[in-house]
Amino acid sequence: MDNNIKRIAILGSTGSIGQQALDVIRALNTRFRVMGLAGGKNLKLLGRQIEEFQPGMFYSSIEPDFAYKGKFSSMEEIASHPEVDLVIIATSGKVGLSPTLAALKAGKTVALANKEILVMAGEIITHEASLHHSQIQPIDSEHSAIWQCLRGEESKPQRVFLTASGGPFYHCSQPQLSKVTVEQALHHPTWKMGQKVTIDSATLMNKGLEAIEAHWLFAIPLDCIEILIHPQSIVHSIVEFVDGSLKAQLSFPDMRLPIQYALCYPERLPSLDLPHLELSKIQCLNFELVDRNRFPCLKLALEAGRQGGTYPAVLCAADEVAVELFLNRCISFTDIARIVQETLEQHKSIAQPSLEEILAADALAREYAGRSLPCHCEEHKQRSNLRTGK
Amino acid sequence: MDNNIKRIAILGSTGSIGQQALDVIRALNTRFRVMGLAGGKNLKLLGRQIEEFQPGMFYSSIEPDFAYKGKFSSMEEIASHPEVDLVIIATSGKVGLSPTLAALKAGKTVALANKEILVMAGEIITHEASLHHSQIQPIDSEHSAIWQCLRGEESKPQRVFLTASGGPFYHCSQPQLSKVTVEQALHHPTWKMGQKVTIDSATLMNKGLEAIEAHWLFAIPLDCIEILIHPQSIVHSIVEFVDGSLKAQLSFPDMRLPIQYALCYPERLPSLDLPHLELSKIQCLNFELVDRNRFPCLKLALEAGRQGGTYPAVLCAADEVAVELFLNRCISFTDIARIVQETLEQHKSIAQPSLEEILAADALAREYAGRSLPCHCEEHKQRSNLRTGK
Repeated sequence: MDNNIKRIAILGSTGSIGQQALDVIRALNTRFRVMGLAGGKNLKLLGRQIEEFQPGMFYSSIEPDFAYKGKFSSMEEIASHPEVDLVIIATSGKVGLSPTLAALKAGKTVALANKEILVMAGEIITHEASLHHSQIQPIDSEHSAIWQCLRGEESKPQRVFLTASGGPFYHCSQPQLSKVTVEQALHHPTWKMGQKVTIDSATLMNKGLEAIEAHWLFAIPLDCIEILIHPQSIVHSIVEFVDGSLKAQLSFPDMRLPIQYALCYPERLPSLDLPHLELSKIQCLNFELVDRNRFPCLKLALEAGRQGGTYPAVLCAADEVAVELFLNRCISFTDIARIVQETLEQHKSIAQPSLEEILAADALAREYAGRSLPCHCEEHKQRSNLRTGK
Repeated sequence: MDNNIKRIAILGSTGSIGQQALDVIRALNTRFRVMGLAGGKNLKLLGRQIEEFQPGMFYSSIEPDFAYKGKFSSMEEIASHPEVDLVIIATSGKVGLSPTLAALKAGKTVALANKEILVMAGEIITHEASLHHSQIQPIDSEHSAIWQCLRGEESKPQRVFLTASGGPFYHCSQPQLSKVTVEQALHHPTWKMGQKVTIDSATLMNKGLEAIEAHWLFAIPLDCIEILIHPQSIVHSIVEFVDGSLKAQLSFPDMRLPIQYALCYPERLPSLDLPHLELSKIQCLNFELVDRNRFPCLKLALEAGRQGGTYPAVLCAADEVAVELFLNRCISFTDIARIVQETLEQHKSIAQPSLEEILAADALAREYAGRSLPCHCEEHKQRSNLRTGK
């Protein structure tokens, strides 16, 4: 096989990042070969992807309704298969945890889009990567920006500025926030993303998760990570060095760029499909420090990250349940932070937890958060309990 | 001698960049040793510098009036001395040309602040550097920014955006420009620099020279270099890669940062003296494409760079004479561009010129430009001719 061809597996190929990863691979089809695709329940889309890319292995979380010659394999099998060079983890939530570990243990390069994996189990994941000399490459735009700015630098950054658009409600008052509808929250001003991450962007929980992720990816103390509100989403993050010099990465907000960067690294390849940025047309880039008090989810996330132990796993679990309740119109927008806070408050954290302890904390937090429903929503409560495996 | 100590020679130590280089060395005095200092006519300052840094060699363009135990040496001797690791070329005009060649031929690292050297003789200089595996490291803030952004990158940039504050007169009309006084032109909005470069910044000639310099330093075609007006002087330049990703370098406008970066490279060292940038206090960064038609000096420089041959040397020479005439109040601000244009128009360029042909073109251009005076200024004309060696 041509040495210039990278052999790719995508876990979560039917999600937003998975689909865009396949867009990148399609545009640069002489450089990549898709070896495995894993999807969730969208069998129609998964079937189409499989037909187009003809992977040797595939997986779906429900039984496939189509016939295909490739091997039905677990996500762990796909992620650790000897013929795979790079695994894109584009799943969401904890489902990607075990396949990510399998990939790292098999020495694969992992291109990581699934935030919760590092937030829940950062210490375990980075330890396994270093043990097996496996690379973790970020796909998130902010972390890709940091990675690009640190390229070739020998010294650690002094500070990192994660930029945040501020989401659709950055200038809303607390009473306005409590009346936010699902439709309003799903309308992100600059980025087109999946539902969960769009709501997390509106609460700024997303930025808190990203700070914890950056802490693990680049071994930067959380106190050296600052959040800058930057409404244009052009500067994707900024790194400050000890000499006072800063480097920023900029581009048109399009997830295909950080995906392509991770897939092609260390090369940069031209892509006619990606929009080019003309700064003279943007004219102005704004920055302001985030007001953490107005966005309690951000504060909770940074605090959970600082405390460590099983707190970040509980944060993720409670947020996932709360966002789902909000999307199901069971709770208000401001209830998301309340449920996450209450779940964290009742939790007793374990220091340096094992994977089992993390998953146990996750399960308990889901149960607790699912119970935090207003009483008029009993029906949804039962459905939510079912969904979380109770 | 400690391997961690870099042995430095500074040519032009009494100028603005030379003094700031000594500030950097003073602040990081365990890492550097000054081996040679060369100044011009400011013997008082040179004497003080020599007393403080105790170099083994020194030079001044007029006979020194102080006694010092070190060896009075030519700039070429200092630049090529076996005990020198890095030579800072902080002279101005063509005087640094021959010592720069001497340093490169001796395999030294050259930290270059003297723009005219690459503009006049870019092909010869870069050829000598590559022949002797000598490094040329930029000290200019814009070129340092490009150098920092290209660090660790394997692929060539697709476009480079040189930022320009626009100088004090960016929004002036043509009639207003013709009435500009020397005092107004010397008042730069963001940078503290020497007189010549401050006037060149006001005419935007400086940005044209920088574009030609960037072309030689980074082997980028001039057509891939764009000028962006950025009034805050925070983003020092921007590099665009083939995948559509851009990297920018930012800092508080202070020349000590690019000087320190070049001196410490590949390390970055902390310096308490350098001011730190808080983007949230700057709040807004603006960008607009430059209007080349309103700044004829920029247009002339880019055209001379594109034509090549001896045109860029003629551009430099004519500009140097014209700026001096303006500083001596012999001509108006808008006459600078007129004199440069007329001198370029009468010149017959030589392709791939030798050093001698470049210096001959320089001398002829100085003579021609010196003659372009309004008749009422005969006295200054004679003084100017004297100064240029006629």
